Amino acid sequence: SEIVPNYRLDGHVTIVTGGSGGLAHTLCQALVAQGSELALVDLTVERLSVVENDLKEFVRVNKLAPVTISTWACDVSDSVQVEELVRAIPREHQGLLPDKLVHTAGYCQNIPATDYPATRAEHLVKVNLMGSLYICQAMTRQLLEKTKRRKSISTMANSAAEALPRFPNASYVLIASMSGMIVNTPQPQVAYNMSKAGVLHLVKSLACEWARYGIRVNAISPGYIATPLTKQVIGASPEGAALQYEWTSRVPMGRMAEPKEFVGAMLYLLSSHASSYTTGENLVVDGGYTNW
Amino acid sequence: SEIVPNYRLDGHVTIVTGGSGGLAHTLCQALVAQGSELALVDLTVERLSVVENDLKEFVRVNKLAPVTISTWACDVSDSVQVEELVRAIPREHQGLLPDKLVHTAGYCQNIPATDYPATRAEHLVKVNLMGSLYICQAMTRQLLEKTKRRKSISTMANSAAEALPRFPNASYVLIASMSGMIVNTPQPQVAYNMSKAGVLHLVKSLACEWARYGIRVNAISPGYIATPLTKQVIGASPEGAALQYEWTSRVPMGRMAEPKEFVGAMLYLLSSHASSYTTGENLVVDGGYTNW
Amino acid sequence: SEIVPNYRLDGHVTIVTGGSGGLAHTLCQALVAQGSELALVDLTVERLSVVENDLKEFVRVNKLAPVTISTWACDVSDSVQVEELVRAIPREHQGLLPDKLVHTAGYCQNIPATDYPATRAEHLVKVNLMGSLYICQAMTRQLLEKTKRRKSISTMANSAAEALPRFPNASYVLIASMSGMIVNTPQPQVAYNMSKAGVLHLVKSLACEWARYGIRVNAISPGYIATPLTKQVIGASPEGAALQYEWTSRVPMGRMAEPKEFVGAMLYLLSSHASSYTTGENLVVDGGYTNW
Amino acid sequence: SEIVPNYRLDGHVTIVTGGSGGLAHTLCQALVAQGSELALVDLTVERLSVVENDLKEFVRVNKLAPVTISTWACDVSDSVQVEELVRAIPREHQGLLPDKLVHTAGYCQNIPATDYPATRAEHLVKVNLMGSLYICQAMTRQLLEKTKRRKSISTMANSAAEALPRFPNASYVLIASMSGMIVNTPQPQVAYNMSKAGVLHLVKSLACEWARYGIRVNAISPGYIATPLTKQVIGASPEGAALQYEWTSRVPMGRMAEPKEFVGAMLYLLSSHASSYTTGENLVVDGGYTNW
Ligand SMILES: NC(=O)c1ccc[n+]([C@@H]2O[C@H](COP(=O)([O-])OP(=O)(O)OC[C@H]3O[C@@H](n4cnc5c(N)ncnc54)[C@H](OP(=O)(O)O)[C@@H]3O)[C@@H](O)[C@H]2O)c1
Ligand SMILES: NC(=O)c1ccc[n+]([C@@H]2O[C@H](COP(=O)([O-])OP(=O)(O)OC[C@H]3O[C@@H](n4cnc5c(N)ncnc54)[C@H](OP(=O)(O)O)[C@@H]3O)[C@@H](O)[C@H]2O)c1
Ligand SMILES: NC(=O)c1ccc[n+]([C@@H]2O[C@H](COP(=O)([O-])OP(=O)(O)OC[C@H]3O[C@@H](n4cnc5c(N)ncnc54)[C@H](OP(=O)(O)O)[C@@H]3O)[C@@H](O)[C@H]2O)c1
Ligand SMILES: NC(=O)c1ccc[n+]([C@@H]2O[C@H](COP(=O)([O-])OP(=O)(O)OC[C@H]3O[C@@H](n4cnc5c(N)ncnc54)[C@H](OP(=O)(O)O)[C@@H]3O)[C@@H](O)[C@H]2O)c1
Ligand code: NI
Ligand code: NI
Repeated sequence: SEIVPNYRLDGHVTIVTGGSGGLAHTLCQALVAQGSELALVDLTVERLSVVENDLKEFVRVNKLAPVTISTWACDVSDSVQVEELVRAIPREHQGLLPDKLVHTAGYCQNIPATDYPATRAEHLVKVNLMGSLYICQAMTRQLLEKTKRRKSISTMANSAAEALPRFPNASYVLIASMSGMIVNTPQPQVAYNMSKAGVLHLVKSLACEWARYGIRVNAISPGYIATPLTKQVIGASPEGAALQYEWTSRVPMGRMAEPKEFVGAMLYLLSSHASSYTTGENLVVDGGYTNW
Repeated sequence: SEIVPNYRLDGHVTIVTGGSGGLAHTLCQALVAQGSELALVDLTVERLSVVENDLKEFVRVNKLAPVTISTWACDVSDSVQVEELVRAIPREHQGLLPDKLVHTAGYCQNIPATDYPATRAEHLVKVNLMGSLYICQAMTRQLLEKTKRRKSISTMANSAAEALPRFPNASYVLIASMSGMIVNTPQPQVAYNMSKAGVLHLVKSLACEWARYGIRVNAISPGYIATPLTKQVIGASPEGAALQYEWTSRVPMGRMAEPKEFVGAMLYLLSSHASSYTTGENLVVDGGYTNW
Repeated sequence: SEIVPNYRLDGHVTIVTGGSGGLAHTLCQALVAQGSELALVDLTVERLSVVENDLKEFVRVNKLAPVTISTWACDVSDSVQVEELVRAIPREHQGLLPDKLVHTAGYCQNIPATDYPATRAEHLVKVNLMGSLYICQAMTRQLLEKTKRRKSISTMANSAAEALPRFPNASYVLIASMSGMIVNTPQPQVAYNMSKAGVLHLVKSLACEWARYGIRVNAISPGYIATPLTKQVIGASPEGAALQYEWTSRVPMGRMAEPKEFVGAMLYLLSSHASSYTTGENLVVDGGYTNW
Repeated sequence: SEIVPNYRLDGHVTIVTGGSGGLAHTLCQALVAQGSELALVDLTVERLSVVENDLKEFVRVNKLAPVTISTWACDVSDSVQVEELVRAIPREHQGLLPDKLVHTAGYCQNIPATDYPATRAEHLVKVNLMGSLYICQAMTRQLLEKTKRRKSISTMANSAAEALPRFPNASYVLIASMSGMIVNTPQPQVAYNMSKAGVLHLVKSLACEWARYGIRVNAISPGYIATPLTKQVIGASPEGAALQYEWTSRVPMGRMAEPKEFVGAMLYLLSSHASSYTTGENLVVDGGYTNW
């Protein structure tokens, strides 16, 4: 029945940045399962090849329909690289313009504010915040430029003579963080926090500007995730264990998240059927952390 | 594949309050399509029978598996009625305890604050805010009382000797409103606004208290919805049309929502697979309204 | 110099509800020091007489100019009583209409949501939330009704022929709570939390409706305050001490507030000189609690 | 009487960045009226000399006690310059370490997101967001380094053997913007919006980190201000007038702010007497804009 949203992504190319990261790895499995072609982006292609192979094995084991997967080295904080990246992707995907984005590229750093070197704070902001802007800009620019503007004269009184192009399937999902809403404790991470708050408001700003094109832009704000990386940190020492205890004691659900617990939020936001009236939203998935 | 969330609700009884309302009508179609049994609740059963018949016709036309649907008259602002309602429902559903809730019962009223009669403001708050508390309380109480507490001695150091019962499938979705976040204009509706802000924080409070039982509590905040009712108001007069113009000019997406645009948010939150780490959250579906 | 705001309140009657409470007691000292006449309101006048005497002694000791202080028994949850109260106050203040409000009446209750009796939750909401509405309504109604509407024809194109009355000195300050923004832990207090969230949004709604009259409405959200009452609870038992430890460990400043630490926020909001462009605002004074 | 906060700033050096800007000009008058010494900072000293002379004239006309005013050229986006600036200031102020900050340096830019050149967005973020971090870092570092750590052994059980230095008078006020909370319309300004959201969360992060030193960090979020600059833009053309109409129609108070309407908020936050329990707070002064 039409009433239940369609979460399938067949015929779309989803750009996944930070593609070899802990969260992305899991999200990509859901994307291929839903039939999306993937353009995986990370700083280097080496680890992306591992991800690509894993995904192909995942497709095989689960008897899924194979999808085209391309891998790309790109530093998202470099706007020129990002622009070139987005222009190049259609070539590996039969000319399909990517109109779905899952932007996970980013990193955290724990340095007390009094000691934080300017160059490090700047780099973090450039990757986490500016990188989020660049990838969205590049995608929308390409959609706009490669789409022949319809020449129909609008009938509405005060609208522009030339109708605006519409991309009702375009949906960008940016992984922000609850750190953009609250201040984590005890670890100091001022640059990360402010970068993620910036991402949350970037999302709202782009959502408002691009609503006219039918492009939706939303964020997901995870709480603490038990990725392979964090599991390793926590398991490595008594300090790691103490940190985990402090973290989980601040979560009403009493535990960290598993990466797969973000798939539902991602599919909701990516699906233009499920979330057609949702834009500029920050979907928080934090086990209740920000409520306390 | 396991990675894509399961949005099916087979074997669950979902209580839908305000069952004959404009929003609920559509949401119920999605619920039966997902296999959920329904306990429809409204002030009177007469209009619920119409809904029930519509849903049965919907099942037939779409060749869906039939589900048990029960209808109940109950004023949600009366805690005694609500308690009795929830206790009675299992009898019509083979003893199944309802553990899914879609609470839409509520109403809006446009009265300037200087003129607002106390009795009317009180009634609205009693229905919208207190009613939201009562239905959640009654459901959780029943789950707790009808579940034999496991007598296992916990092995964890500082946990209680008696393990807490867990209901990882329990998910309550309360329809709040963007009116609980921003103040609508131009129509004055102070009592509605404060009642919905109360609902949003009720949701956070219950989410925190009941995380220990695995029960998740979340809100959906709609923007303006074009229900049959609002369509009629807007279509009836030039003032209605002017109001609609004023409303939609404040929505980045430039239009009101259709009821079916909330199905995706509802299914995401109801599915314990899709939103297992999401609690106390306010999922805003407003076409971007609150961003401006 | 004109540039520094004038925080004096001479010639104004400030209504202080919850006048015999721990917070109000201190705030009243600042009000009389600033020259405001006081209409003290509480459930009973007995304890208010003590406050009144204390304030007179305070005036004497500090060699302040004496101000008229009246005391009133009124249950703020009873709209009829509140209406009568506000109408009666000018009689004890040489006909002066009260146009400043410091609304502290309210109470908290710690009951798990599963056990919360409906009558108790309703009473709390009626006092904390409805009472906040009633006192504001009564004050504005009196200002509007007792003010001769100026008959001047406005010169602006699309304004109403009859100019609206303006009360640029009217300022209502409602004591909400950080509990309207976050969920306290470990103590369960769902009704209080939702009532205070309601107050915060009531404030925004009234601010928007009454901006046309020049009336400003704002909230103060305190964190934990060490009032005589809380000091007693905390000092009485090891459990009290443990609770205090848990509370203060969640405050970046590491301590509870003293009542006098809210005087600055109150004077800022009450002074029509200091906060002339501030309305609908929630001034948080919480030692940083809500940031974590 | 002690109960009324003291807003005097005698014996303090307040750093005012963006010192020759429209808002700062007015705020500085209040600062000298309150007895604060001033270290005025802007891109060039030329216009600061004008401000300095104006302030001296202001002091003379209002028969205020003269205060030391120093002027400094510094690009706040350059961390090295900022560090040197803060180290140099005490030399012009009898060795006094600046412990009050009013940070207004920043700028806005209206460019559609699709056209926004990366270099311009980066520069804006560097000035508005990174500059806010650098000035706070430099001030705190200087306070910490130039203060002999007290060698007293703390008596409290679980505190560090060496007590932390405390600066209970240190108060940093950062001018953010309502643009960090909502998305302005109709003008596009994505980089500004995200930079100011970043500032708001920077403030919360630093407030949490430095609460241990007694340093408070807060923001003021102005709505639209009628500075000389904006007045000129608005007055210059029909488009300017149309923009002003669109802006003020979205403000419940129906008008833009005057610069002097931020003095009360600034003094409240600067005064360690008035706002001793307020940190990480965002004091919104917007005529109610963000409520709608
Ligand atoms: N893990 C958590 O608890 C948590 C919580 C909240 C939010 N988040 C957010 O979730 C996202 C994913 O986190 P994660 O845990 O999966 O982290 P992760 O494993 O470190 O993955 C992030 C990926 O981004 C890549 N990356 C870093 N800088 C990049 C750049 N300039 N250009 C392109 N790629 C770059 C990283 O590559 P390299 O490994 O080569 O650097 C890495 O593969 C991040 O945005 C993070 O802030 C995570
Ligand atoms: N429509 C919008 O634009 C909009 C926007 C934001 C949020 N919402 C919220 O969405 C929900 C559904 O709205 P809707 O548009 O579908 O409204 P609706 O058509 O009026 O449906 C609400 C239903 O609740 C029932 N109800 C009212 N009081 C009740 C009580 N005391 N006990 C039990 N049932 C009661 C109503 O019955 P009667 O008809 O017999 O009174 C009605 O059937 C409401 O909570 C509303 O506040 C709506
Ligand atoms: N203390 C805190 O930590 C804290 C934190 C955040 C917010 N707050 C808020 O700050 C305000 C003042 O708190 P407080 O600590 O000063 O509390 P308090 O000492 O209990 O004072 C509240 C006063 O309100 C009166 N009151 C209660 N119900 C009333 C009614 N129906 N009509 C008229 N008066 C009524 C009480 O009278 P009786 O004593 O006779 O009942 C009491 O004198 C409250 O709104 C509270 O919610 C307090
Ligand atoms: N005006 C409004 O409506 C409004 C609304 C909300 C928030 N705000 C915020 O309020 C603050 C003051 O605004 P305003 O209206 O007074 O603006 P303004 O008149 O332009 O003042 C800002 C000042 O900052 C200086 N500045 C710019 N970049 C700098 C840098 N890199 N280093 C040092 N100084 C720099 C400017 O110098 P130059 O002139 O030489 O560039 C200017 O003197 C800004 O942060 C603004 O974002 C303003
Ligand atoms: Ni918190
Ligand atoms: Ni708004």
